[in-house]
Amino acid sequence: MKIAIVSGKAEGPTKLNSFDNALLDAGIGNVNLIKVSSMLERNTVVMNLPKLTPGSMINCVLSCVSSDKKGDLISASVAIAIGENLGCVIENSQINRDPEEVRKESIAMVKYMMEVREETIHELIVEEINHTVENIGTVVASVVYLK
Amino acid sequence: MKIAIVSGKAEGPTKLNSFDNALLDAGIGNVNLIKVSSMLERNTVVMNLPKLTPGSMINCVLSCVSSDKKGDLISASVAIAIGENLGCVIENSQINRDPEEVRKESIAMVKYMMEVREETIHELIVEEINHTVENIGTVVASVVYLK
Amino acid sequence: MKIAIVSGKAEGPTKLNSFDNALLDAGIGNVNLIKVSSMLERNTVVMNLPKLTPGSMINCVLSCVSSDKKGDLISASVAIAIGENLGCVIENSQINRDPEEVRKESIAMVKYMMEVREETIHELIVEEINHTVENIGTVVASVVYLK
Repeated sequence: MKIAIVSGKAEGPTKLNSFDNALLDAGIGNVNLIKVSSMLERNTVVMNLPKLTPGSMINCVLSCVSSDKKGDLISASVAIAIGENLGCVIENSQINRDPEEVRKESIAMVKYMMEVREETIHELIVEEINHTVENIGTVVASVVYLK
Repeated sequence: MKIAIVSGKAEGPTKLNSFDNALLDAGIGNVNLIKVSSMLERNTVVMNLPKLTPGSMINCVLSCVSSDKKGDLISASVAIAIGENLGCVIENSQINRDPEEVRKESIAMVKYMMEVREETIHELIVEEINHTVENIGTVVASVVYLK
Repeated sequence: MKIAIVSGKAEGPTKLNSFDNALLDAGIGNVNLIKVSSMLERNTVVMNLPKLTPGSMINCVLSCVSSDKKGDLISASVAIAIGENLGCVIENSQINRDPEEVRKESIAMVKYMMEVREETIHELIVEEINHTVENIGTVVASVVYLK
C-alpha cells in the first residue's frame, strides 16, 4: 500500500468553493474523493503525491473544516502511525483551538489506537494546516490511498 | 466516463423511508450508493440511466434534503459543467429558498469551479427538483457514474 | 453476494477512540470502511464474519452513535430483509430510547421498503446493540459486504 499525505487551505466565494479551492491547493481537487476510515496495510509506504488523472476515483481519509466568520482560526490535521502489522490514521479538525493542543490531541489519539492493537509505532507523522479566515475559508488534510 | 443525471421526490412514513422512496422515484433506489465528490473525466458523456442491477455498487454525487414540516419547500439540485480536459459537479440542497435563486447559485458555483481551473465550459446542465412537503418528504438529485 | 452482520460497543478516552474500540469489538476495526446505502443482491447469503486482511477496503452499511454523557442509553441497529429478487437494509441509531421501540421502528421501516418494492420477505434479521455510557461510549451495528 502506498499513501500520500497532503494538506491545503483557501478562501472562496462560497463554502463549497472554498472547500474546492482548498482541495486544489492540496493537489487533490481534480479527482473523485471516496472517504474511507482509516487503517493502513502492513508495509505501507509514504510517498509524494503523484499526478492524479482528472476524474479518477481516489480513496482517502479527509479531515476538513470551513468557516465564514472573519478571524476564526481553522485547523485540520491527520496523524498517521505505522507499525509492523498495520497502521492507524486519525482525522482531527477544529475551530479556534490552539494548534499545539490539537496536535497533541491527534498524537494521543493515534498512539492510543496503536496501543489497543498492541502495535509498536515505527513511524509517526502529523500533517496539520491552520488558517485565519478572511471571508470564507476551508482547510483540508488528507491521507490519499494510491494504487 | 459515462454519467446519468437523475432526480426524484417522494413522501414516506419516516424520513428514511421518504428518502428511499425518492431514490426509487429517481431510478436509483435498488442499488448501493457510494458517495463521491465530484469531478468528471475528459470526454464525459451524459446518457439516460440504464437499468441497474439490484444490489450493485454505484458511485454517485448525491444532493438531497428531507423535511417533516408540512408546507416546507425543499429543493435539491446538481449542476454539471463539462469542459475539454475535465468537468465539475456541484450539489446544492435548500429548504424554503426561491428555486430560481438556488439555480443561479448552483450555476455560479460550478462556473467558478471551472474558472479557477481555467477550463472553458462546453456544456452546462442543471438538474433540479422541488417539492412542497405534505407530511414527510425528500428530494434527491444525483449524478450517477456508470461503468 | 455474501454479507456478515456484526455489532460492537466500547468506551474510550475520546469519541473517536471509543468509536474505534467499538469497531474493534465488532470485528471490523482493522479495515478501511467505505459506507454504502443499502441494498442487497438476489441470493444474498448471510455468513459469519471471516478474518479480514488489515487495511483492506470493505463496503458496509454502518449504524453508530456516540455519547459522552454518563448514563445515556445508546442504541445502534440494522434491520435486514431478504426477498426473492433483492434485499433491503436500514440503519437506526438512537439515544435514550426504549430498545424495544427502536427494534419495532427498524422492522417497520425495512418492511415498508420491501412492500413498496412488492417483494416478499423470506428472511428478516435485526442486529441491535445497547450500551449505558460510563464516560465516553459508542455502539455500532453493521452489514459488511464480503467479496
